[in-house]
Amino acid sequence: MAQLRRDPITRMWVVITNDHPKGPSDYLPFKPPYQLPEPEGPCPFCPGNEALTPPEIYSIMKEGEKGWGVRVIPNKYPFFRIEGEFDRRPEGMYDVMEAIGAHEIVVEAPEHQQTLALMESSKIRKILQAYQERLLDLEKDQRFKQFLILKNYPGIFNRHPHSHILAMPVVPRRIDEEIWGILDYYQRKERCIFCDILKEEILMKKRIILETVSFLVFAPFASRYPFETWIVPKRHRSDFHRLQEEEAEDLALAIHSLFLRFYRLLSDPPYSLTFHTSPVQEPFHRSEFHWHIEIRLRIGLREGFEWGTGFFVNQTPPEDAAAFLREVER
Amino acid sequence: MAQLRRDPITRMWVVITNDHPKGPSDYLPFKPPYQLPEPEGPCPFCPGNEALTPPEIYSIMKEGEKGWGVRVIPNKYPFFRIEGEFDRRPEGMYDVMEAIGAHEIVVEAPEHQQTLALMESSKIRKILQAYQERLLDLEKDQRFKQFLILKNYPGIFNRHPHSHILAMPVVPRRIDEEIWGILDYYQRKERCIFCDILKEEILMKKRIILETVSFLVFAPFASRYPFETWIVPKRHRSDFHRLQEEEAEDLALAIHSLFLRFYRLLSDPPYSLTFHTSPVQEPFHRSEFHWHIEIRLRIGLREGFEWGTGFFVNQTPPEDAAAFLREVER
Repeated sequence: MAQLRRDPITRMWVVITNDHPKGPSDYLPFKPPYQLPEPEGPCPFCPGNEALTPPEIYSIMKEGEKGWGVRVIPNKYPFFRIEGEFDRRPEGMYDVMEAIGAHEIVVEAPEHQQTLALMESSKIRKILQAYQERLLDLEKDQRFKQFLILKNYPGIFNRHPHSHILAMPVVPRRIDEEIWGILDYYQRKERCIFCDILKEEILMKKRIILETVSFLVFAPFASRYPFETWIVPKRHRSDFHRLQEEEAEDLALAIHSLFLRFYRLLSDPPYSLTFHTSPVQEPFHRSEFHWHIEIRLRIGLREGFEWGTGFFVNQTPPEDAAAFLREVER
Repeated sequence: MAQLRRDPITRMWVVITNDHPKGPSDYLPFKPPYQLPEPEGPCPFCPGNEALTPPEIYSIMKEGEKGWGVRVIPNKYPFFRIEGEFDRRPEGMYDVMEAIGAHEIVVEAPEHQQTLALMESSKIRKILQAYQERLLDLEKDQRFKQFLILKNYPGIFNRHPHSHILAMPVVPRRIDEEIWGILDYYQRKERCIFCDILKEEILMKKRIILETVSFLVFAPFASRYPFETWIVPKRHRSDFHRLQEEEAEDLALAIHSLFLRFYRLLSDPPYSLTFHTSPVQEPFHRSEFHWHIEIRLRIGLREGFEWGTGFFVNQTPPEDAAAFLREVER
């Protein structure tokens, strides 16, 4: 089983897995530069190999064709397991609990080689629908406080396009920090800080990458990473999974346009993408939260400095990044 | 000039450099796997090439031989610059200031190929002395609130063994979080949480890697990274740079022993090392702080998940890591 252990100083929860603990020999081939080669054998996410994965939780069929277009399955090697008890307990002076939760994989397309940049927006719309439907279902389980949608491109262990859905029993620190900042601002101003940021960015223009009916896509003022980008709904909404039909279509268009810009400007860069959405269940849900997507390109080399300090150094000012990305399609 | 910009939501400061902004072409060769090749031409940190660096700030001569053993120089490409005014100001709704500070490089040895694992502890002692002397000197500048000592091995842009000393005008978030956790614990218990952790670890034994007269070296309970290791002084001390002579000798021995264990167990792994020490200058200095060293091996592949959530997944339980490292020298 995996455990959740709390750092007593910063109160950050860490997942420690000990079912198949990794010893030194598991790390020996993984010095930087790290990139795993594609594993040998059939890809478990390709059509025809469905028996290699746990049974499907959800799928969307292809339009007018046979076979699935998007498929959701439990992760075979989950960080959080669905069965069991939390068993919150002390261990000496420390806090520990079992890592209960859900960890699902969204296989985004039947094609092994595919990317958000080159996918039609109608297909991206289907991926968003799968995310939404799964969260609406997982929300019924009262044990889960926080959802997380995460995508690494290219996938680290499998290149077939996929993303992760996690339902967690604790609120991760990054979300907690945002909530704290949002509530603090709200107490002082009785306004949402994200709504104010949107107004400011629309006024200043220089960090905007693109704007659609319902979303603003921009490089945030204190960008931690070169070409860091946020996609923020223009209307105040706390939950991604309560997205309306027309908003979802608009979001698919925004995602398609943004990733095509990255693809052209930076020659198909590696990236990580994450959805920040309000915790769920009372009393944890926060209507003050403003859900959004954060995107980081995995380029640049300052890892040690950031880690050592929690202090980020970014050599590409967001105004420059936004200008490059605005102009790429011309 | 570099700017310090504050994220208005999480209040994290980010350094944005815009003197030589990096555009897309600067990142194009740097997809993962990223490891820069050794640059062409003479190494500026090797003896005989001193003219390639800015003038030396401090040095320690080799014992009984000609030439320097440790040399401290300003960083040619600093994140923080020593001259100028902070010019704290709003930019629209945001906060910004100039990145004033010091950024020095400690060249740890004359040899281009050298590592803490294979260095004699008397030489490590000299590096510690250089750190201490520089911090004692930098402390006289009232503008600096926080010191940071950081080492990446191997160096990202230059393989010659070196570390960074930074003097910063703001307290980075990681230190701020620790202070917050320390003060909160102190208010409840009137005890130092690090002192309590030391007692707990000495009692539990299973996460200890080695113990010297003055230091405990152990794998922390909520280790974020495989083989994460902390070196903590057993007596409560807030400032690294007030280390006593005999404590420094003892620390050099502990560092030597720990890195030799890493070297043997994980075949010379890449790592990052950072000193966490109290902010300086009143009213920022915190006698409640317990200074320590944190070490992270740069192995494993979970970057995206950690980034997306602030949530770490560690597949090597610290008890296992400590056992491996305790036993490696047998």
